[in-house]
Amino acid sequence: MPYELHYWPTIQGRGEFVRLALEAAGADYLDVARGPEGDGQGVAAMMRFMDSPDLPHPPFAPPFLVDGQVVVGQTAAILLYLGPRLGLVAKSEGQRLWTHQLQLTIADAVAEAHDTHHPIASSLYYEDQKPEAARRAQEFRELRVPKYLAWFESVLQRNPKGRAHLVGARLSYADLSLFQLVEGLLYAFPKAGRRALTQTPCLEALHDRVAGHKRVAAYLASDRRLAFNEDGIFRRYPELDA
Amino acid sequence: MPYELHYWPTIQGRGEFVRLALEAAGADYLDVARGPEGDGQGVAAMMRFMDSPDLPHPPFAPPFLVDGQVVVGQTAAILLYLGPRLGLVAKSEGQRLWTHQLQLTIADAVAEAHDTHHPIASSLYYEDQKPEAARRAQEFRELRVPKYLAWFESVLQRNPKGRAHLVGARLSYADLSLFQLVEGLLYAFPKAGRRALTQTPCLEALHDRVAGHKRVAAYLASDRRLAFNEDGIFRRYPELDA
Repeated sequence: MPYELHYWPTIQGRGEFVRLALEAAGADYLDVARGPEGDGQGVAAMMRFMDSPDLPHPPFAPPFLVDGQVVVGQTAAILLYLGPRLGLVAKSEGQRLWTHQLQLTIADAVAEAHDTHHPIASSLYYEDQKPEAARRAQEFRELRVPKYLAWFESVLQRNPKGRAHLVGARLSYADLSLFQLVEGLLYAFPKAGRRALTQTPCLEALHDRVAGHKRVAAYLASDRRLAFNEDGIFRRYPELDA
Repeated sequence: MPYELHYWPTIQGRGEFVRLALEAAGADYLDVARGPEGDGQGVAAMMRFMDSPDLPHPPFAPPFLVDGQVVVGQTAAILLYLGPRLGLVAKSEGQRLWTHQLQLTIADAVAEAHDTHHPIASSLYYEDQKPEAARRAQEFRELRVPKYLAWFESVLQRNPKGRAHLVGARLSYADLSLFQLVEGLLYAFPKAGRRALTQTPCLEALHDRVAGHKRVAAYLASDRRLAFNEDGIFRRYPELDA
């Protein structure tokens, strides 16, 4: 039975971290909210599932994964669940925990990237919080992005198995997610993102290596990969870059 | 050998979620940055450890836990590690994952609580972002707090083992963390927090039950429990409450 991923059908958003793991592993999955309503899919099906009152483990928000009787929400928890099943995490408890810790730090950076265009309220439009967004984006570009990227760079430099991956000598879901974070930063902040990345050559190489992974590359070139846009987490508002 | 918790010594902050778990389990631990410098403790010792260039798994920020050779950062990852060791999580993989998912949602709420007083930049003072904080706090009080609390209420209501705990029939680290979230909301937003809580009676009862847990109660009454203050995550700025 294929995995069911439930996420908003028109954005990469947080669902993309799960999509990348499923795609990199060549897993059989259904992107439910992007499917045809006639087949019981689409956004309405996702919402119906999520709001079902007899679900014992209701997700707080998309994305969530359905695997038979198992329902998992929260991007990092989904990857914690999928990692061993997709062969995208090491076997030892210590390495699994470390991979998860990396993922949680990526999630923090993603949340901060979101708040550059929505510093006041998710319920308001960007247009209702533009001056605040400009201030927050400046802090993000000048302090936060360099701090996060430098930390990931140092993680790569310290990996006793080499600098090709974050953990051990094999691809993990954290590598995939870090690729996506870098992609998002380069989309939303082409100037600041590129500038920061020149300071972190191991990270840049990791990004390029993931982009060249056979199944990832095929996915990125397919129409399953949605384009970045100004409804997602990473948005290109030129006034927020510098 | 006692666990070593490393966190800022003058605030509850994110470290408090770990302290509560250690205390509720009666674990032997050292709150390193609060210890005497003469014994190799204090903030300098924490920073020295964190910045050590040969640490293979460097924490991005406090809190982090040291258990022999294991170093774990990220509050939720620390609890993922400690949960089974402290008897604060169920045995089955499904229940463990669900407990972790709850913890990650608590972490999201905590991050949003922080951003009510720092919507623009962590590197600036509250006084430098007061108008923005007022706007963000309004959204948080009116939309986000009710949404989060209602979700936790529904989780309690759906627990097939009863409404006394979030997961199964026993205390978990997620119960302790949810207690702390409620405590923080009641401190920072006494009006809005109390008002929201009257809508979620199971959650209020859980909060009171945790506060009455023998070891938790002893901890809360001890001088190991730091008071809330305006350097932490939950800050009482009357102008942000309503």
